Amino acid sequence: MKTYLDCIPCFFKQALEASRIAGADEKIQRRVLEAVAETLPKFPMEASPPQMGRIIYNLVRKHTDTDDPYLQIKEQSNRLALSIYDRAMNDLARSQDRLLSAVELAIAGNIIDYGVNNALDIGVELEKILSAERNKTGDENRTFFNIDSFKISLSEANTVLYLGDNAGETVFDRILIEEIKRMDGTKTITYAVKEKPIINDALKKDAVDCGIDTIAEIVSSGSDAPGTIPALCSDEFMERFYKADIVISKGQGNFEGLSDSDRTVFFLLIAKCPVIAADIGCRVGNIVLLHHLPE
Amino acid sequence: MKTYLDCIPCFFKQALEASRIAGADEKIQRRVLEAVAETLPKFPMEASPPQMGRIIYNLVRKHTDTDDPYLQIKEQSNRLALSIYDRAMNDLARSQDRLLSAVELAIAGNIIDYGVNNALDIGVELEKILSAERNKTGDENRTFFNIDSFKISLSEANTVLYLGDNAGETVFDRILIEEIKRMDGTKTITYAVKEKPIINDALKKDAVDCGIDTIAEIVSSGSDAPGTIPALCSDEFMERFYKADIVISKGQGNFEGLSDSDRTVFFLLIAKCPVIAADIGCRVGNIVLLHHLPE
Repeated sequence: MKTYLDCIPCFFKQALEASRIAGADEKIQRRVLEAVAETLPKFPMEASPPQMGRIIYNLVRKHTDTDDPYLQIKEQSNRLALSIYDRAMNDLARSQDRLLSAVELAIAGNIIDYGVNNALDIGVELEKILSAERNKTGDENRTFFNIDSFKISLSEANTVLYLGDNAGETVFDRILIEEIKRMDGTKTITYAVKEKPIINDALKKDAVDCGIDTIAEIVSSGSDAPGTIPALCSDEFMERFYKADIVISKGQGNFEGLSDSDRTVFFLLIAKCPVIAADIGCRVGNIVLLHHLPE
Repeated sequence: MKTYLDCIPCFFKQALEASRIAGADEKIQRRVLEAVAETLPKFPMEASPPQMGRIIYNLVRKHTDTDDPYLQIKEQSNRLALSIYDRAMNDLARSQDRLLSAVELAIAGNIIDYGVNNALDIGVELEKILSAERNKTGDENRTFFNIDSFKISLSEANTVLYLGDNAGETVFDRILIEEIKRMDGTKTITYAVKEKPIINDALKKDAVDCGIDTIAEIVSSGSDAPGTIPALCSDEFMERFYKADIVISKGQGNFEGLSDSDRTVFFLLIAKCPVIAADIGCRVGNIVLLHHLPE
């Protein structure tokens, strides 16, 4: 997805928020905002928003002299998500359509952002999202919830590449991966994380802390962009990307980087921003499972 | 009120919105955003947000070569507000406390922004605001709704300076001014508008179109800032400002410019932005009647 002009105010908002999370004082916060303003004329709008995200967070790191401002937040998100793992698995055991429920949980897990502060909140948020999903009537939303083609493609796949998004959310990815393995233990699943700290995106350590290492091979995208941008990923990762029978991509950042991809991708995300919702043709807050086919 | 760092992303949002309303294509829209970015390092944070608002809208005017991009929107707002004037006056006639109701209506009229498209919407919005106001229990919100001191100050005043805000809203200002005159026909009321087009702020023509000229003298602030910034106003206006027995100031822009004023002012507004709500100590959406006293 290209960068829309509406993304520009949001870049400044993100820069301010990240500066504050990195502990910057007002003077440094303003310096970061000015540095973002300076890069603006040079930024090509054909590039996808996570490319600017990468620039912004590198500016924050540089001006605040912190390597991983979101470290504590990520660790807290992992702990919180793990604390509701058992309950989620119990719910799943009672489901009439376990794969659908696991998919919905994995997408709903995308709500775990640094705004969510405790297990109760996560429980409430998940319940809200999932009941809104279940209450959907008719085929109204089916254009962006392609569960049937997902089930078919998954059943035919031997190798699965799963692109992770945020720390914490990783626990819900694990639930879906476990369900996929339960249905067919012969599938080989690879879970991709970011190479270096970027916002609250999951790194290898987060995936291990959330128990992904017991069910999937963890690999790095080779990039520190907050999304999968092919030109910034390692050759090794891109080889896996093209060779996998199915690619499951979580979250907005990966969608923004891959929405024009020349291969089939299933995008699982909650549409959190109006620009992305408009691009997909859904509403902010919708649960999305988009079957992307190359043009 | 000084400019907060949180205002900066919003400046870009406003610039983008105004460029679009001015009919700019994407190229020009981006040019305006870059021009705003260029001015950022030079902007003193001690200045109040409407000073930046003025710079932004002058950049929009320059780059889009339009003098009054919001002209049609203002005319439409005036027409819409006038179309519900009779109904509002009927409601007022049934009120147990007419002055309070007129004050509430005048503040609620601050909701008429360019997002509101028809009389039905305005009616629904007004009803929502006013019933939320009436449902308030206890003294919880009384710290920012000083109706008692307003009534006392008004009863003692011979001269009233009323600072207008948006076009359309002016009709609800007229309702309050008419109520003040009905209670005491000897009061002299002056209604202040902006000197030149700025966003959807009322100009002299709007005040006349809304019928203010029949009940008050219309004067100009002498400035094209979207708020009353003393340093930018004419000497003539500032003399009136200091000489008036009571100053009634409508909307966020006038509050931002006058919240540190060295004279007593009654601020009537809906807190529409989180920064202003935090500054006042209320919530976004609250109806505010703030009795400002100089320090």
